[in-house]
Amino acid sequence: MQRHFDDELRELKQKLLRMGALVENQVRQALMSLIERDETVAQEVIANDRQVNTLDVEVDETCLELLALFQPAARDLRFVTTAMKISTELERISDLAENICERAIELNQEPQLKPYIDIPLMAEHATKMVGEAIDAFVRGDSMLARRVLKDDDHVDALNEQIFRELLSFMIENPQTISRAIRLSFISKYLERIADHATNIAELVVYMVEGKIIRHTIPA
Amino acid sequence: MQRHFDDELRELKQKLLRMGALVENQVRQALMSLIERDETVAQEVIANDRQVNTLDVEVDETCLELLALFQPAARDLRFVTTAMKISTELERISDLAENICERAIELNQEPQLKPYIDIPLMAEHATKMVGEAIDAFVRGDSMLARRVLKDDDHVDALNEQIFRELLSFMIENPQTISRAIRLSFISKYLERIADHATNIAELVVYMVEGKIIRHTIPA
Repeated sequence: MQRHFDDELRELKQKLLRMGALVENQVRQALMSLIERDETVAQEVIANDRQVNTLDVEVDETCLELLALFQPAARDLRFVTTAMKISTELERISDLAENICERAIELNQEPQLKPYIDIPLMAEHATKMVGEAIDAFVRGDSMLARRVLKDDDHVDALNEQIFRELLSFMIENPQTISRAIRLSFISKYLERIADHATNIAELVVYMVEGKIIRHTIPA
Repeated sequence: MQRHFDDELRELKQKLLRMGALVENQVRQALMSLIERDETVAQEVIANDRQVNTLDVEVDETCLELLALFQPAARDLRFVTTAMKISTELERISDLAENICERAIELNQEPQLKPYIDIPLMAEHATKMVGEAIDAFVRGDSMLARRVLKDDDHVDALNEQIFRELLSFMIENPQTISRAIRLSFISKYLERIADHATNIAELVVYMVEGKIIRHTIPA
């Protein structure tokens, strides 16, 4: 039976949604490994990175096949090339979830520096952005994509705030330095996760509206 | 006059080489702004980021046009989709050069913490990797690309070493903390530049050999 382009597209969307859900879960579990000080969860996230990598390769191959077999034009062409790029962004988010777990494992060797309040909040924002960016792509919803772009400022502000707080810990008591630095890395990873969600959202706006807004929005 | 696909490909390669050279130069100048404590150079790099962004958009549009007009297959198709991805990587490198300059400007407000030895060395390695990765792409040289992959270990090791040294500064004298942290950020940015070069090199190996080696090489 001959497959139709629309069926293939639907399958591609499903695969990206699956990948997005997996990646969101990676980030959530990474945070759990930090907050619950649970190394088993951290190791799980690190192991699951393979699954995301496999999906990335699959999406890439699927897109190349679609381009070769159906030679889509205009909107469809843009959808397929955007899917390839989004898959790369998702894979990088999964790498960052892995990095969070690595730092969490290191932090587990020492007493907890402080109760974590802003970091989980930041993680919540960042994962929400990832989920919404993927939804915006699959639904071709540039309004939703633009909302994701706005949320990025909030994550950046939280990162700044966390950094300042950790800096004051370090200056007051040098014994906290190595822990504070690790926590500032985690905060930075979360900020980069939000940046990847922003990249996805920008790609969606471009795909839907034909306007390139990456590089035009002030950082 | 009808244009031929080969002419278009040649032009695309030229554009990517130009973009690569521009980005390499951004990183070199960013380092100069740090070492010479020269804010003017830093501001220049930040301003030049626009040029790289414009080239990124141009490469993207060119690739979409090539796909739509010529519907390339097999090797050519892979070349064009790889070019799109490489352009994104280059644009991110330029962003990181900008980040280096931002930290350099901040560091210029205070006395220099220490003579910079390893950071320039790291920058040299990283820019070399970027240049070689682009060359490998344009020439379709997977041997060269594999060499780039190996160099990444060296940059990672330098980053580790720099971080340890800066950590000892911070612990010995809390007054160095904010400078040491900024320097560790610069070191991290350079490591990420090398990572982007690695991404490009992995894409080249895949394009040439048809083997996906991203995700298979131990981090």
